Amino acid sequence: MPAPRDPVPTPARLVQSPGGLRSSHYPGRLIVFEGLDGSGKSTQAHLLLKWLSSRGYRAFFTEWNSSDLVASIIRRGKKKNLLTPTTFSLLHATDFADRFERHILPPLRAGYVVICDRYVYTAYARDAARGCDPDWVRNLYAFAVPPDKTFYFRVPVEAAHKRKEASRLRIKYYEAGMDMNLSHDLTESYLRFQGLLKRQYDVLARTEGFQIIEAEQDIEALQREVRSAVRPLLGGFPKEEVLVHGT
Amino acid sequence: MPAPRDPVPTPARLVQSPGGLRSSHYPGRLIVFEGLDGSGKSTQAHLLLKWLSSRGYRAFFTEWNSSDLVASIIRRGKKKNLLTPTTFSLLHATDFADRFERHILPPLRAGYVVICDRYVYTAYARDAARGCDPDWVRNLYAFAVPPDKTFYFRVPVEAAHKRKEASRLRIKYYEAGMDMNLSHDLTESYLRFQGLLKRQYDVLARTEGFQIIEAEQDIEALQREVRSAVRPLLGGFPKEEVLVHGT
Repeated sequence: MPAPRDPVPTPARLVQSPGGLRSSHYPGRLIVFEGLDGSGKSTQAHLLLKWLSSRGYRAFFTEWNSSDLVASIIRRGKKKNLLTPTTFSLLHATDFADRFERHILPPLRAGYVVICDRYVYTAYARDAARGCDPDWVRNLYAFAVPPDKTFYFRVPVEAAHKRKEASRLRIKYYEAGMDMNLSHDLTESYLRFQGLLKRQYDVLARTEGFQIIEAEQDIEALQREVRSAVRPLLGGFPKEEVLVHGT
Repeated sequence: MPAPRDPVPTPARLVQSPGGLRSSHYPGRLIVFEGLDGSGKSTQAHLLLKWLSSRGYRAFFTEWNSSDLVASIIRRGKKKNLLTPTTFSLLHATDFADRFERHILPPLRAGYVVICDRYVYTAYARDAARGCDPDWVRNLYAFAVPPDKTFYFRVPVEAAHKRKEASRLRIKYYEAGMDMNLSHDLTESYLRFQGLLKRQYDVLARTEGFQIIEAEQDIEALQREVRSAVRPLLGGFPKEEVLVHGT
């Protein structure tokens, strides 16, 4: 919106180089957790949030698909099995754009440490696995700012599946890639689709400079690794007390 | 979908050159009507449909925003004034992708003459007027096939507005570009926004090779111009009788 009441350029205006994420100039920090379902990334993201908050940092957590605006329509489309890979991809991009502008950009501008459980890379991996053109997908998300750090929780598909099973969460149709006709069996399809996603993540890890976390360690060891990677990003970063005194 | 049951590549797979529309290899024909609201394009599109049908051609009409999947969410988002230009753009691209795959591609594959009242160029014009990066927008729509013919009904903003007023259709918030803070007055905002759209269309007419129709003529003269431009596209094109006999 070229609205006089908001002098900050909108993401749409910030798109300088379609096909890649621009570098960020916001006062906050953006830390992203990526990996397969059952890789343990969400647990680690929450532990990091707690740790940061306990140390006085203004931290904000957000996860994929939390946007009110289009979540219902995605559910509706999924239910009816109406979505092709292109519509699926665009619908998720819309959802992400809405989430980005509502829940990621404002805290970044306000100087928060924003922790994202899944970011654009989830879309890169999933849409590429479904056969969408990677450059096309990448351009869809050109409005998003690049993270200061992206953790990739790498784990064998079988291990992730075991954890998923232990969580007793039902595997959903699209999550299992059932739309791709990999197998008529839900579990078999899930395993094969997760394998495709893992391959995409492994490629992205190189091209996007992820910090790979070998995720088959205990929770404490993983969190130590996460914290020690985050610590250098916080140099000179204001804590709650400082901000309170400064305002 | 790389589904074995559908050997035809999906639009997502067809994206060869992000940033531009590919050339079409479908048996049907795609004819697009573009222009401002009140330019008379819809009337002409319907007259062409009637004419083609009466001559035995299998013709199919579709208009922007007719998709069930996301129309409701667009209305919801518009109502709440929740949409930024990026989300607005992505949401319409999703809507269009759904409409394209459901209502445009199947009849094109089946050898119909598909008549579109508005196509990707409406998005190009509108999103560019709202400040979105034109290359980014163009890439969003890279899944769409290029029309065999695009008519641009060119008309001064004032003339289009008069026709719109005569139709007694209420001008809506986004249609008037009220989100852009061009003016607090709805009509004034509408006129200024339509002016921005017209400027975009005039540029697109050159870059996209539109056939310009000076739309301030009477209905019959306009339809003669449309038909004589469509006629050459129908050479060797099967009529209903032929198809019926052939199947």
